[in-house]
Amino acid sequence: MQAGVKPRIGMMGTGAIGGFYGVMLARAGFDVHFLLRSEFGAVAEHGLRIDSAVHGPLSLDPVQAYRSAADMPRCDWLLVGAKTTSNADLAPAIVQAAADGAKVVLLQNGLDVEEALRPLLPESLHLLGGLCLICVHRVGPGVIAHQALGSVNIGYHSGPCHDQAERMTVVEAAAALFRAADVEAQAMPDLQQARWQKLVWNVPYNGLSVLLGASTTPLMADDHSRGLIQALMAEVVRGAQACGHQFAPDYAGYLFAMTEKMPDYWPSMYHDYSHKRVLELDAIYGRPLASAKAAGCELPKIEALYQALAFMDRRNR
Amino acid sequence: MQAGVKPRIGMMGTGAIGGFYGVMLARAGFDVHFLLRSEFGAVAEHGLRIDSAVHGPLSLDPVQAYRSAADMPRCDWLLVGAKTTSNADLAPAIVQAAADGAKVVLLQNGLDVEEALRPLLPESLHLLGGLCLICVHRVGPGVIAHQALGSVNIGYHSGPCHDQAERMTVVEAAAALFRAADVEAQAMPDLQQARWQKLVWNVPYNGLSVLLGASTTPLMADDHSRGLIQALMAEVVRGAQACGHQFAPDYAGYLFAMTEKMPDYWPSMYHDYSHKRVLELDAIYGRPLASAKAAGCELPKIEALYQALAFMDRRNR
Repeated sequence: MQAGVKPRIGMMGTGAIGGFYGVMLARAGFDVHFLLRSEFGAVAEHGLRIDSAVHGPLSLDPVQAYRSAADMPRCDWLLVGAKTTSNADLAPAIVQAAADGAKVVLLQNGLDVEEALRPLLPESLHLLGGLCLICVHRVGPGVIAHQALGSVNIGYHSGPCHDQAERMTVVEAAAALFRAADVEAQAMPDLQQARWQKLVWNVPYNGLSVLLGASTTPLMADDHSRGLIQALMAEVVRGAQACGHQFAPDYAGYLFAMTEKMPDYWPSMYHDYSHKRVLELDAIYGRPLASAKAAGCELPKIEALYQALAFMDRRNR
Repeated sequence: MQAGVKPRIGMMGTGAIGGFYGVMLARAGFDVHFLLRSEFGAVAEHGLRIDSAVHGPLSLDPVQAYRSAADMPRCDWLLVGAKTTSNADLAPAIVQAAADGAKVVLLQNGLDVEEALRPLLPESLHLLGGLCLICVHRVGPGVIAHQALGSVNIGYHSGPCHDQAERMTVVEAAAALFRAADVEAQAMPDLQQARWQKLVWNVPYNGLSVLLGASTTPLMADDHSRGLIQALMAEVVRGAQACGHQFAPDYAGYLFAMTEKMPDYWPSMYHDYSHKRVLELDAIYGRPLASAKAAGCELPKIEALYQALAFMDRRNR
């Protein structure tokens, strides 16, 4: 790809995820435009900084930062790094910043997250999902710590493509974008499968970090919490299977062992809880439970975790 | 019964439970002797006081208080109000304070709590269990708040009785003791059944008070925690059934509705947790889970709760 013909990218929501991938893409020469809210001032003045344990210190300054989508140029790709809970509110901004036939990629965890957004987008826009396996968190305004990992699994949700071959062409183009920015990316033939797969990690660790006030290292150091994590992972795999998705053999064991090797990590749900923000309970627990139940599959431990978290979330705000 | 022939009672462990029932029995004219540890000085000096929402203010002063079982007279009944986790440590004191053929009644929740103690007692002692449905808590040294309820269900565990008729005679005598002290008491033909029955309350409320840092009123006010309480109760009933115990129809519904009418209550496990004392997790969760499992019955939500609590308990101390 030549710099001149590189697609223009809009990063909608510049938290830890949006900031990290946005900076990686901008440093690779893409024309990246960042929509910001509370951190607009800090980022416009000081730029974005990533303290990456993988890539070393990275920074982007100046940043093409915007308070409003109305001021952004029309983008070919719109990457959404905001919380699933704000998708409906973000829809007008996405529509405003989208070029004709733009591709919208939700870099968000959970199931059915595209469903709330799709009716709010014109049919001409492609809608994709990207599952980020990454340990990243916001340290301060415009400052992000990248502790480990970083790969993105991308799948197609809906839009103007006529068949699976066309869909995979778009997904491959998305993966190529990330790969050009030194980010591992995989084109997934089935977005639902990719979403279930990522839940094998998010269901235990996100929820238990809030429920037990514990990061990954203590959770992995105690026999009882280890057993609970493995049981929750096994229920996600069972739910996925009931919904028709097969993972690689012992995929849960692979993620469990991977987490054991990770640096100590507080999942994003813990940060949401400690900042009294709404938790992504519907996407990560409610929707998977409902899908599994519709397929005749009960997931009792996930349900108990969801009920406990819903109580905590309500009382927290 | 005449005052002169009333049996002598030893109260082993004078916390909220031991203090309440001990004072009720002493006020009814029984010769009650209290073994105390940390609160000996306060109780010897100021006596015991119960602020009872049911019986009004009650007090006992002077109290026949002892630091050591060696100083106590031999008692016909020994009521154990200590935590299940201290039964083994308490055994020598029980033996020392016991008259020939004495009856030992463990006023404790959970399953299999007599098992740890039985091998440490001479065969000549009767061992019984008493399940207290009561809202009572310690307010300060020698001061106890009694908020509601108070009934005791008593069953026979083991000892010199030859048959069920003899066993029921002992159990009826125990119930008569409490009834003489204005305490509702029921003689239960099967102690295991009585223990499972009480677990229908303890399993949800004790654990969730610790896990969610919440007393009964907020737990009963939120749809998600209500659903979780009901699911946990249903699992206890299922576990009991697998172990051969049948309850009255909708016994869980009865306890749920009863809790809704109770004053706001913090279960004892919450107090244990907040004082960094060891939690009674084995008696209330571990043993019931193991018994149900041995009968081929999985109780996944109880197991998840147990695993989460075990993590918290370990980190708390």
